[in-house]
Amino acid sequence: MNKLYFNAKRFFIIPLFFIPFVSIHSFAYEYESKSPQGTEMPFAKTTATPHMIPGNMRFRHEMAELLGEKVGPDDSGDVYNAGGLAGYYTGPKDLFPGKGKFGQLYRFLPVIRWYDPAYYFNPENFHPGSTVIGEFTNEQCVTCHTAENPGIVMQWRQSKHGTPSEGKEVVGCDRCHGKNHEKLIMPTYTLCGECHEKQLKGHREGERGSHAHAYHLELVDQGCQMEKPAEETTACLACHAIAENRCDGCHTRHRFSAAEARKPTSCGVCHSGPEQYEYEMYMQSYHGMIYQGEGQNWDWTRPLNAKNYVVPTCAYCHMRDGEHNVTKSSTVYTYMGTSLVDRGAYRYKATREAWINTCKGCHSPRFARDHLEAMDEAVKLSFTKYREAMGIVLALYNDNLIDPMPIDLAPDSRGHNVFSLMPGKGEMRKYNVSNIERLTYEMLVDIIGGIFKAKSHNAYYSPIYGYWEWAQDRWLIQIKDEASKLKRFAEIEEKLGIKHTASPFWKHGEYTDMFLGWKRKEWGK
Amino acid sequence: MNKLYFNAKRFFIIPLFFIPFVSIHSFAYEYESKSPQGTEMPFAKTTATPHMIPGNMRFRHEMAELLGEKVGPDDSGDVYNAGGLAGYYTGPKDLFPGKGKFGQLYRFLPVIRWYDPAYYFNPENFHPGSTVIGEFTNEQCVTCHTAENPGIVMQWRQSKHGTPSEGKEVVGCDRCHGKNHEKLIMPTYTLCGECHEKQLKGHREGERGSHAHAYHLELVDQGCQMEKPAEETTACLACHAIAENRCDGCHTRHRFSAAEARKPTSCGVCHSGPEQYEYEMYMQSYHGMIYQGEGQNWDWTRPLNAKNYVVPTCAYCHMRDGEHNVTKSSTVYTYMGTSLVDRGAYRYKATREAWINTCKGCHSPRFARDHLEAMDEAVKLSFTKYREAMGIVLALYNDNLIDPMPIDLAPDSRGHNVFSLMPGKGEMRKYNVSNIERLTYEMLVDIIGGIFKAKSHNAYYSPIYGYWEWAQDRWLIQIKDEASKLKRFAEIEEKLGIKHTASPFWKHGEYTDMFLGWKRKEWGK
Amino acid sequence: MNKLYFNAKRFFIIPLFFIPFVSIHSFAYEYESKSPQGTEMPFAKTTATPHMIPGNMRFRHEMAELLGEKVGPDDSGDVYNAGGLAGYYTGPKDLFPGKGKFGQLYRFLPVIRWYDPAYYFNPENFHPGSTVIGEFTNEQCVTCHTAENPGIVMQWRQSKHGTPSEGKEVVGCDRCHGKNHEKLIMPTYTLCGECHEKQLKGHREGERGSHAHAYHLELVDQGCQMEKPAEETTACLACHAIAENRCDGCHTRHRFSAAEARKPTSCGVCHSGPEQYEYEMYMQSYHGMIYQGEGQNWDWTRPLNAKNYVVPTCAYCHMRDGEHNVTKSSTVYTYMGTSLVDRGAYRYKATREAWINTCKGCHSPRFARDHLEAMDEAVKLSFTKYREAMGIVLALYNDNLIDPMPIDLAPDSRGHNVFSLMPGKGEMRKYNVSNIERLTYEMLVDIIGGIFKAKSHNAYYSPIYGYWEWAQDRWLIQIKDEASKLKRFAEIEEKLGIKHTASPFWKHGEYTDMFLGWKRKEWGK
Repeated sequence: MNKLYFNAKRFFIIPLFFIPFVSIHSFAYEYESKSPQGTEMPFAKTTATPHMIPGNMRFRHEMAELLGEKVGPDDSGDVYNAGGLAGYYTGPKDLFPGKGKFGQLYRFLPVIRWYDPAYYFNPENFHPGSTVIGEFTNEQCVTCHTAENPGIVMQWRQSKHGTPSEGKEVVGCDRCHGKNHEKLIMPTYTLCGECHEKQLKGHREGERGSHAHAYHLELVDQGCQMEKPAEETTACLACHAIAENRCDGCHTRHRFSAAEARKPTSCGVCHSGPEQYEYEMYMQSYHGMIYQGEGQNWDWTRPLNAKNYVVPTCAYCHMRDGEHNVTKSSTVYTYMGTSLVDRGAYRYKATREAWINTCKGCHSPRFARDHLEAMDEAVKLSFTKYREAMGIVLALYNDNLIDPMPIDLAPDSRGHNVFSLMPGKGEMRKYNVSNIERLTYEMLVDIIGGIFKAKSHNAYYSPIYGYWEWAQDRWLIQIKDEASKLKRFAEIEEKLGIKHTASPFWKHGEYTDMFLGWKRKEWGK
Repeated sequence: MNKLYFNAKRFFIIPLFFIPFVSIHSFAYEYESKSPQGTEMPFAKTTATPHMIPGNMRFRHEMAELLGEKVGPDDSGDVYNAGGLAGYYTGPKDLFPGKGKFGQLYRFLPVIRWYDPAYYFNPENFHPGSTVIGEFTNEQCVTCHTAENPGIVMQWRQSKHGTPSEGKEVVGCDRCHGKNHEKLIMPTYTLCGECHEKQLKGHREGERGSHAHAYHLELVDQGCQMEKPAEETTACLACHAIAENRCDGCHTRHRFSAAEARKPTSCGVCHSGPEQYEYEMYMQSYHGMIYQGEGQNWDWTRPLNAKNYVVPTCAYCHMRDGEHNVTKSSTVYTYMGTSLVDRGAYRYKATREAWINTCKGCHSPRFARDHLEAMDEAVKLSFTKYREAMGIVLALYNDNLIDPMPIDLAPDSRGHNVFSLMPGKGEMRKYNVSNIERLTYEMLVDIIGGIFKAKSHNAYYSPIYGYWEWAQDRWLIQIKDEASKLKRFAEIEEKLGIKHTASPFWKHGEYTDMFLGWKRKEWGK
Repeated sequence: MNKLYFNAKRFFIIPLFFIPFVSIHSFAYEYESKSPQGTEMPFAKTTATPHMIPGNMRFRHEMAELLGEKVGPDDSGDVYNAGGLAGYYTGPKDLFPGKGKFGQLYRFLPVIRWYDPAYYFNPENFHPGSTVIGEFTNEQCVTCHTAENPGIVMQWRQSKHGTPSEGKEVVGCDRCHGKNHEKLIMPTYTLCGECHEKQLKGHREGERGSHAHAYHLELVDQGCQMEKPAEETTACLACHAIAENRCDGCHTRHRFSAAEARKPTSCGVCHSGPEQYEYEMYMQSYHGMIYQGEGQNWDWTRPLNAKNYVVPTCAYCHMRDGEHNVTKSSTVYTYMGTSLVDRGAYRYKATREAWINTCKGCHSPRFARDHLEAMDEAVKLSFTKYREAMGIVLALYNDNLIDPMPIDLAPDSRGHNVFSLMPGKGEMRKYNVSNIERLTYEMLVDIIGGIFKAKSHNAYYSPIYGYWEWAQDRWLIQIKDEASKLKRFAEIEEKLGIKHTASPFWKHGEYTDMFLGWKRKEWGK
């Protein structure tokens, strides 16, 4: 029953966050905020909610019977050949409390303590796992850990902390982790900043869109990426929380090497993949290709400038002269490129000139200006295509022709049942939406955002062949095709007097229920 | 007619392997196992089957006429601008006999002899291509081949075989290839094992899922990947057969270098791509990024451990201390992650601790344990999503709403016409299935398998943004959307009294017929 | 109004290029080539065409009202959160004249001058951006630019131009750019060829498909890739124009290093991405993986041959002995692999033997021959699958079942409204086509072309798992699925007496109108 407790708790949290809203069509979502007994379910209610389970069980038992498989819990170690069709889902045994505005809704797996040190030493959550008691000197730490974890000791010895330049003191284990083995510390930027003031200042001064807000504003407070069970958000948290909270995201422990942090690979751990493809884009550009071909032979201990490096790297442009506020070299905050702005507009003249100045190490200002203008225009053109797509989708939405309509879907984290692409109304999301909405979301966030980034990094193939401009054509075709099919269905059904209703699987299902926590309907109803 | 002979032979092999079965709905596939004359076609029947050709010809001639293109054989050297619409398909002139249970069904292109040395010297298949006759000493080999193939001689000289450490003898050409130029040998692991006993033992001890079974069990005997014409399976065979049969898959000839084999690139030749994305995942992790940034400067002659390398590589974790049985560091065999199992379950405690011990070179046991738990939970969650998808698809299947139903598709290699995702019933396959079945297959094999692997390799972006968890949401939307459309069609057609039958192109076509070998129907019937 | 001028000019160019044609079904496209006043609009007509704007404005104002967003021009620097839904589109202020047959239709952004030096110094288009006047010696150039652009001076000093071998003269700034700072030159291959005759000759002798035709024939004259607004073609031009016009595409300025150009990364800038995946394919092969693992430690100043390199690179095979005519080592021109040809046919014996000879540095001729045969056969098989798909699509086309039919789409650059995959009839294009046509296009151009390239580069995983053979199965399923749906709709609609007409959004929309320039219809009509 302990497992049910955790699930149940999550399943009834939403109503607290339900924010009344008026959508264009005043949709009302007939969610069930009541328990089987008809009483309101407060957040802290700990009673198990067995009415949810039978549905799950029934489905699984049906599958099991059909497939001749055993039925059992999924933490038994048994192998379920049919993809676990006959297993019970068991969540992690002890979720950690969440943070921020949605902190009670979205909790964490214990792994969070390695990303957000605030969780590291928490008596309530602390799993000792160590019987070592007492206080120790650096020398004692090193002695034991040379046997226990030779890698980190070797790395520390290679670092300036372990082998300082003449006249400086060793920065020992105890300096960052404390002496008391029962109350070990996991250092955050605050501790590093005690010695590295300038870097700390830069990091913390970053505006929205910078590392300084990657976790508390972007992820935890805003919650836009978080409408997911804890089991699915670990990888989000890894990058978002480490980038904000820890310095060893870029200067990995225990070498804490500036040379390492200067390399594109340091940025690439997080800045890669469809929604932040910067690493790949850089690597496909002339700059990146030349780096790929010879970069390991460069002397990375040297400052990043045109005299020392034949091509720029991520940090060369975005962290000039070691500036740790990466937003200093930005232009306008556009939510990852999803808002339209002319970055070449007169009012951004100073920023544009600063960028041109960066390019000037190796290129003429005219070269830089022409390329940046090409980026501006490609971005604007991409929004033209998006407006065409949005016009089609909004017309469907206004005619109630999207299948399923938002009202037929589980609501978003704030209880909204509106079209998620309606700015400022719904929570823009890429799951639990209709097919056409997902296509449109992808066109905006993945493709348009990608065009901006590919052009700004001069990844020639990317904007065209690779993934972006031609992909946007592809998505436009798919959106039109889907719209066309939905309209044909509607016309036919109207003529036949069929009143189409969305299939119940859009609103409920084992996962759909779980990820947002609405009351489970019986399967197939 | 010689070309027809080979096609014809393949086209009538299947009935021999037809295994009677009872599917849930007792589908019967009305395949035609009879020749035009009504007699059973035995395997060895060599008569051409001209009834198949006219259909092909007719289609091609129609296309040719429409497009104003010539008609001709496709081995003429002519260029067919319309994608060869007017060309005749000619199979390879001499297919090699297959192997294992399906050996008579699935034959090989001659290139197999480079992957499976058993085919290398086969008097029947041997194409001399050399007029060099007689026996030779190593010195004589080297003399000639320095002129003929300077690369391999240079590589051999760089190897320990060519330039052995003091007191050891040269391992010459003749040691591995024999002295008789007319009966040259292509060495397998057996020959290498004569000197490298420990490595051979490790290799051969690998359990299912290891290199030792990559070819004979996984591919040749099981045949699950092989329901394809020989022309399409070369690349499958390259990795599967080389991995099992030859040592130079990792220690490439003629350097046979342990240092080379230690690098991730050695593993990446095969372990990359959608269904075995391990190389890319490693490269996207902190470990891989640091390797990418500096790995070419490391001393790869040193043993793989935390004292010698700042981050682990593939072999560091999976082949600790040179262990050549890669399954020793596995947990549970799950068919590439397609079966659900809790790898953190108590019964796998010893294996889990062994993994934690591997991480312990640089991380605390708690760090490792938390991350492995996060992997366990992400995997389980992914199956929750799969169960939701499968429930929808199975409901369609039970209601006969999938288009096309399995009965309307060419059968699998065993003659089955069942839903390919029904465990233990059909052969799970990703081609010649319905659209929704393919989507569901991809969700299980590509995506869920990918989540397990991405998490286990700590590729942060991969599990979320990259390809997996968010991709699974995408696939879930597409599956629901497809199910929704199929149901709308069915309701409409029922109301109109239309009895929908699957289009004949699902069952027959030039390629569809060819890849499994069922009798060709006339086009459009 | 100045902005409108440019758009308007582009919007009425097409009729001049309208080439009469007879399609199979004699479709007539009711485009509007007349101005609102009913007079023909000649190319040079500069009157604004305000009738187009209201439609755009109306749509945007509707969106703006709906979303509560401001309305404004998109070059204001304002951020439009709703993806610029309320912004006006403004094209680049000064487009440069185009080139070749379609030169008046497809113009360029100013960035073209960095790709095609013919535009570099053009008094009409020249934007000085510099107040430096007069003539200068090399020493004077270096003095100033050491301060202005230290990178290029450093690179030049590292080059043979800046630090020549004994007895040779410095090749100074003025040698390539001239002395007059007001009339600076951007050198093309002609200038480089004054000293590097052999390389120039090789480059210019390249046949179709070579660098020598990448721009003027492939892109500018043929125009097949160019049916796009200037804003979208910058990245196309970058590779196509640089490859043909400039030597520093491979020997990047100002090092002009042969060693750099020998590396695969040099080729990878352009030869990567879905339609020319050669870089990635090479990198996935044994050859590429070994290069990835150690290539930065090789001595790239040495000539590319089997004695100097353990594996081949792009240039090793395609530019043997420094041959700058890359088509010398080709076989048959097949439009990027989109035409079928048996490269192993007798008439190509000499070319095949030449390839085998290249492989012979490290492999036996039999090994090479078997692998090349496997490539031949895989290619032919892929066309078998394509023919099956094309048969299905053409049947739909003949039955008027494709949605939308070409007549319902904006015409191609020549005014054609025919099925774009009909060889020699329409312009094969991947945008502004129906969904099924796009799928078929992708199967031919992206997938089949990819199979050829993957096999020829021995990228084992690519041909199968990666992207190609299994992807082609995927596309075949999708094509059949789409065909099936279109047929079901048609049968239902026929029974109901519904005459299906394509939605107007297929023919018109903000982007659709813009990219080809047809008169804008009012939204929703």
